[in-house]
Amino acid sequence: MRISDLSRAADVPVATIKYYLREGLLPAGRHLSRTQSDYDGTHVERLRLIRALAEVGGLGIARIGRILEAIDTPTTDRLAVLEAAQRALTVPPDEETAAGDADVAADAPGPSRALAWVQERGWSVDPADPVLTDLDRAWDACDAGELGIDARRLDAYADGIELIARADVSSVPDDPSRAVRQVVLGTVLMDPVLSALRRLAQQHMAVTGQVLAAQSPLGGDVTSR
Amino acid sequence: MRISDLSRAADVPVATIKYYLREGLLPAGRHLSRTQSDYDGTHVERLRLIRALAEVGGLGIARIGRILEAIDTPTTDRLAVLEAAQRALTVPPDEETAAGDADVAADAPGPSRALAWVQERGWSVDPADPVLTDLDRAWDACDAGELGIDARRLDAYADGIELIARADVSSVPDDPSRAVRQVVLGTVLMDPVLSALRRLAQQHMAVTGQVLAAQSPLGGDVTSR
Repeated sequence: MRISDLSRAADVPVATIKYYLREGLLPAGRHLSRTQSDYDGTHVERLRLIRALAEVGGLGIARIGRILEAIDTPTTDRLAVLEAAQRALTVPPDEETAAGDADVAADAPGPSRALAWVQERGWSVDPADPVLTDLDRAWDACDAGELGIDARRLDAYADGIELIARADVSSVPDDPSRAVRQVVLGTVLMDPVLSALRRLAQQHMAVTGQVLAAQSPLGGDVTSR
Repeated sequence: MRISDLSRAADVPVATIKYYLREGLLPAGRHLSRTQSDYDGTHVERLRLIRALAEVGGLGIARIGRILEAIDTPTTDRLAVLEAAQRALTVPPDEETAAGDADVAADAPGPSRALAWVQERGWSVDPADPVLTDLDRAWDACDAGELGIDARRLDAYADGIELIARADVSSVPDDPSRAVRQVVLGTVLMDPVLSALRRLAQQHMAVTGQVLAAQSPLGGDVTSR
């Protein structure tokens, strides 16, 4: 199909498609003439994926590029799959500082609370893993919002997260060419699903009388108002 | 303190502080002279919160403004608290379209999968709740990534999410002046915490041999390599 048909099929403007082609996010079409190329279903699929990452995942071009690169590089080694996913998902320092003038964590140096908590929890995690820095930053941000997150609170969340990670794990296909894709996209695209589920579950508990009754034991009062 | 001291205390540039003052995100200081105002600890706190929302929450000025407004409006009614939170957290259509030319869900009209799933699950949720639209969009994005999310998969995630929502619920303070703040900030600032926890838990399971062994029952093989 021509680029105008591709634009209609994927619902992405021609100018945006040309931008993605220049940035290498979308493979070139089959050359037809000096000014025309032929595109197929794989281009439609790739464009839909880029849109999902940009719009729902909220990612910029550079991160989308790294994610697509990881997806396009199949590997058979199980730790290599996770390392490829980590590389694709971690924000390098230069991209990070573009978002603001200073790091939220900058005024809270010292040992990593995240690492101490993970070790206490008994999770096997590389102490140099950049996700620990993400967790420290997110924890600091909760402090700035005076949410009072402590190790006990994190443990309560971790009980739920372990169930979720098990569901993630059981969905990773044996086919190595699809494993990296599944792990990387599963991390980026599922977070908004989990965020929406969390808000709906909170509402359910409010309506059934379980929210804002902080002092009463949960599940006791199930009368709606 | 003067604006330059405030800048140092909150680690936010003076120009940014002036921008927040103009946009109404930060209350004016006490007037000292035609060119000078006096700021105090409440201004430092508010600036730290704005930074956390912008940098870790990744939110724009308009949404931060709505969130601060919700926080500053205490209410005693438990459903009013959640409604205020929803208003602050929902992206209005005009902001949404600024991110892209078309909606991911635009080519998938028809009945809401999210609503059907929520009703099947037995959650008490307003059928007009905008979070259901968020869930439909996120689900569509997972389809674009060919993640194969279905109702059964969502149920597995919902088991973990219900534990998390219970932990959220039990942390909401009785003091109504703090309840809205806790619910709104808890939603925005905790999502990055949960996202980091999920990635760490996945890694733990990979190292202990629980990841990428999709076909084998979980927890069987706990030898690390």
